[in-house]
Amino acid sequence: MMKTETYRPTAMRLPTPGEVAEWTGGELRDVADPEARLTGLATLEKADEGEIAFVATLKAAGQAADSQAGLLIVSPATDAPGRPRVVVEQVWAAVAAVMQRLYPEPEPDGRVHPTAAIGVNVELGAGVSIGPYCVIGDDCKIGDGTVLGPHCIVDAGCAIGWDCRLTARVTLRGTVLIGDRVTIHPGAVLGADGFKFESVDGRALKIPQVGAVVIEDDVEIGANTTIDRAFLYETRIGRGTKIDNLVQIAHNVQIGPGCLIAAQVGIAGSTRLGAGCLLGGNAGLADNLVLGNRVTIGAAAKVHGNHPDGATLMGYPAIDMKAFARVAAALPRLPELFKRMRALEKKAGIAEKSDDASANG
Amino acid sequence: MMKTETYRPTAMRLPTPGEVAEWTGGELRDVADPEARLTGLATLEKADEGEIAFVATLKAAGQAADSQAGLLIVSPATDAPGRPRVVVEQVWAAVAAVMQRLYPEPEPDGRVHPTAAIGVNVELGAGVSIGPYCVIGDDCKIGDGTVLGPHCIVDAGCAIGWDCRLTARVTLRGTVLIGDRVTIHPGAVLGADGFKFESVDGRALKIPQVGAVVIEDDVEIGANTTIDRAFLYETRIGRGTKIDNLVQIAHNVQIGPGCLIAAQVGIAGSTRLGAGCLLGGNAGLADNLVLGNRVTIGAAAKVHGNHPDGATLMGYPAIDMKAFARVAAALPRLPELFKRMRALEKKAGIAEKSDDASANG
Amino acid sequence: MMKTETYRPTAMRLPTPGEVAEWTGGELRDVADPEARLTGLATLEKADEGEIAFVATLKAAGQAADSQAGLLIVSPATDAPGRPRVVVEQVWAAVAAVMQRLYPEPEPDGRVHPTAAIGVNVELGAGVSIGPYCVIGDDCKIGDGTVLGPHCIVDAGCAIGWDCRLTARVTLRGTVLIGDRVTIHPGAVLGADGFKFESVDGRALKIPQVGAVVIEDDVEIGANTTIDRAFLYETRIGRGTKIDNLVQIAHNVQIGPGCLIAAQVGIAGSTRLGAGCLLGGNAGLADNLVLGNRVTIGAAAKVHGNHPDGATLMGYPAIDMKAFARVAAALPRLPELFKRMRALEKKAGIAEKSDDASANG
Repeated sequence: MMKTETYRPTAMRLPTPGEVAEWTGGELRDVADPEARLTGLATLEKADEGEIAFVATLKAAGQAADSQAGLLIVSPATDAPGRPRVVVEQVWAAVAAVMQRLYPEPEPDGRVHPTAAIGVNVELGAGVSIGPYCVIGDDCKIGDGTVLGPHCIVDAGCAIGWDCRLTARVTLRGTVLIGDRVTIHPGAVLGADGFKFESVDGRALKIPQVGAVVIEDDVEIGANTTIDRAFLYETRIGRGTKIDNLVQIAHNVQIGPGCLIAAQVGIAGSTRLGAGCLLGGNAGLADNLVLGNRVTIGAAAKVHGNHPDGATLMGYPAIDMKAFARVAAALPRLPELFKRMRALEKKAGIAEKSDDASANG
Repeated sequence: MMKTETYRPTAMRLPTPGEVAEWTGGELRDVADPEARLTGLATLEKADEGEIAFVATLKAAGQAADSQAGLLIVSPATDAPGRPRVVVEQVWAAVAAVMQRLYPEPEPDGRVHPTAAIGVNVELGAGVSIGPYCVIGDDCKIGDGTVLGPHCIVDAGCAIGWDCRLTARVTLRGTVLIGDRVTIHPGAVLGADGFKFESVDGRALKIPQVGAVVIEDDVEIGANTTIDRAFLYETRIGRGTKIDNLVQIAHNVQIGPGCLIAAQVGIAGSTRLGAGCLLGGNAGLADNLVLGNRVTIGAAAKVHGNHPDGATLMGYPAIDMKAFARVAAALPRLPELFKRMRALEKKAGIAEKSDDASANG
Repeated sequence: MMKTETYRPTAMRLPTPGEVAEWTGGELRDVADPEARLTGLATLEKADEGEIAFVATLKAAGQAADSQAGLLIVSPATDAPGRPRVVVEQVWAAVAAVMQRLYPEPEPDGRVHPTAAIGVNVELGAGVSIGPYCVIGDDCKIGDGTVLGPHCIVDAGCAIGWDCRLTARVTLRGTVLIGDRVTIHPGAVLGADGFKFESVDGRALKIPQVGAVVIEDDVEIGANTTIDRAFLYETRIGRGTKIDNLVQIAHNVQIGPGCLIAAQVGIAGSTRLGAGCLLGGNAGLADNLVLGNRVTIGAAAKVHGNHPDGATLMGYPAIDMKAFARVAAALPRLPELFKRMRALEKKAGIAEKSDDASANG
């Protein structure tokens, strides 16, 4: 039953170099036959002579000469003179354009599956698709062209914009307001209660969470990610921000536009990020922080303080990324430092002390 | 389609200062008109003159004079003399009481949705609500007033107490026994197999997991959190313990009452925590540990040893929190220490050695 | 409603010592009555005289004399002379064999639930069970004896082998190809889009993800784990590899056979692991790494470089595990080192400098 060869996607059409040039707005060079049929997209290493490969980086440009690819997508900066190629301004934009033609997503059927449980006073835009076993509460609004895959749950009063994709099994609890062209992957939970318990008479008293989650346009949210509703007001994800899988975003967090947030990041309550921030996998941010624009936080860094525009952070607790690199390089030699210290002390006639027992709890 | 103003919840009723005093058992002071209508609850900073704000901390008390709020909820310790206010014993208890009146949760309908698939010999208490597409196995018991939102899955033989809320898409696998007034958020999985594989003849042999998950009264469990069933016996979460999103609790873990466990914490197999422990986000506990009561574990700390009552831990590997603070303050200066060491060694006439290559693998 | 005694599973049959010997291929010693009825399996500590306990380690062998168990499962290496026992080659294999008899999993019903929504051209093998509210897309293949619990979603074109268990609420998106005897726990999402955005004209452009997820035979995947589909080609999990809960495996990752991957691990894009690797909880691997066979990565270690066969790693950033142990032991004494340095410098007549402000960003 097990397939052992490497999987390759099947192209929905066999493109010609001429078509690739047309789709990408590029220029063909050194192509013998612009009408020859190609079979699909490949990597430089794996491409055979019937396939298209792409050269997105200078490093890749160095490998392009060895590729068997029948057509290369290159930019002026990564050109491969003498090879059959299409020269474009932006290699990745061209790759995306070609992929959308060769491997189009299945067309949504634009209908409401008969098993979907739809509440009263729900406004559905033109061409909305709602999959099997979805549950949509009262008073929801869903914009034109939006697709809800199977098993989505949308609580009463939520709003979803145009051309969104809730791919499958997405849950919107409480009040969730979603802009246009938002993609949410399976298992994501938006709008669960924030984690707010206050100690009253020695017990943890739950403080009701009645705010919203607001997702601006063009956001993408990964599988099994959780974004909690605000205590009051809102938790907000800025326009064009992309969030990977298994990320935790707590109540009242504000994330600016154009951020990239990798998998397993955690952002605690009320923390605010500016625009264009990059967070590596498993990075953690304490609560109530204020971070500027274009802040870069390395993978697994744990941030406990505020940082201005352009800060780059790494470590636990996080410090400046360059300082961290120096510390990380020195750290394995720490035991050696103790030996050298002892040698110096001996030479200086300082007697050995017993270990400082209080240092390690 | 995108709403750009800040979201504010709509109060289900417009309260008067007199009502707020009545709901909270507080005393009105400096209120001109106890019958004037207010519009809702707000933060000190954002409140307008028609809104109620609250002063829960001494820090907030310093900001209360600048708030526009029409009514403040204060305690004797955070009083704001001269401002219209209601003085209560416990500010957070009063806030919760007001929120429950102004922003009540939707009333459950107390019925079993026709699409719910219910097994045989299932005991449903009075007023139980079961949402669309729930699947309840044979021989389950569900207590009075409990609500299962849409898409919950409850395996055969599980028991759920009174007045619980499984908000949506909660999965109870194997044997899960839940007390009263327990809240579980979407995507949580209780009772999946523990991760137990033993090496037999060079292969990883799966050891069956046949124990239970026991959740005591008043526990709350966050979205997409996983709590595994025991190998034998049980995994147990103590009364009143609150668990945030994306937490992993392995088989046979025992958590005492009144703990607070923040998001993305991981607790490995058979580890035991006492009462009243606090675990910061992404904290990690190794397997088979024994931790006392009121242990505090900082965010992202990784604990590998046993610790007594009242221990406070931070770091990787975790040490005493104060010791960690000293280490963290010193760490960025470690490279400097190497330079100072070299200077001293020169002065002492010690020749430079090449790096100790064995220190860093 | 709350059960306060410790939960014990109920054995489906009451075995005799003779039966235990037969099921395990072991030999009875010092057993007075091979036909006496026993009640179930227990731990050494909790077992009463009617129960079976097992002695899997030398440490446990030291405790066996104090156990009340009516029958012990021992190996020649962990024998307990004088106690009633069954001596087997492999204790864990014997325990698993006994558990499968005493606590058998519920027999699947081998039918397709009437609420399952099955696409066209779906091939179902003999005895396939499909639970309530499953959604199976067109052109899927599901092998003999495979069980899909409630609420599974399988996209068009996926293939699942023989005797698999998708226990409940498993989502297979895009193209997912699964071998035989694979177990997947609730909430797992296989085949969601990889996280690939390239900066084009200052915006994050989504690069389509059109590859597959390939799961080889005998793999187990934990609750709420996410495994993304490849950009092109495939993300592959090798034969017999076991993955715990809440793990993130990014696009194009290749994991060899026989690995054990504990909860909350994250593996970034295109990283490759060899055979027989062990990853502790919350370990993190950067993208595009190549790790050899039998690499051991400690809990919470963060790996940023390539490592050969047999490497053992710990720390952030990860270094050799033994070197890490020395660093971790020295680290709490770092503040002391500064004091000792200052004392030496004074003695050497070196003036105190103000702190090196550039060291800490």
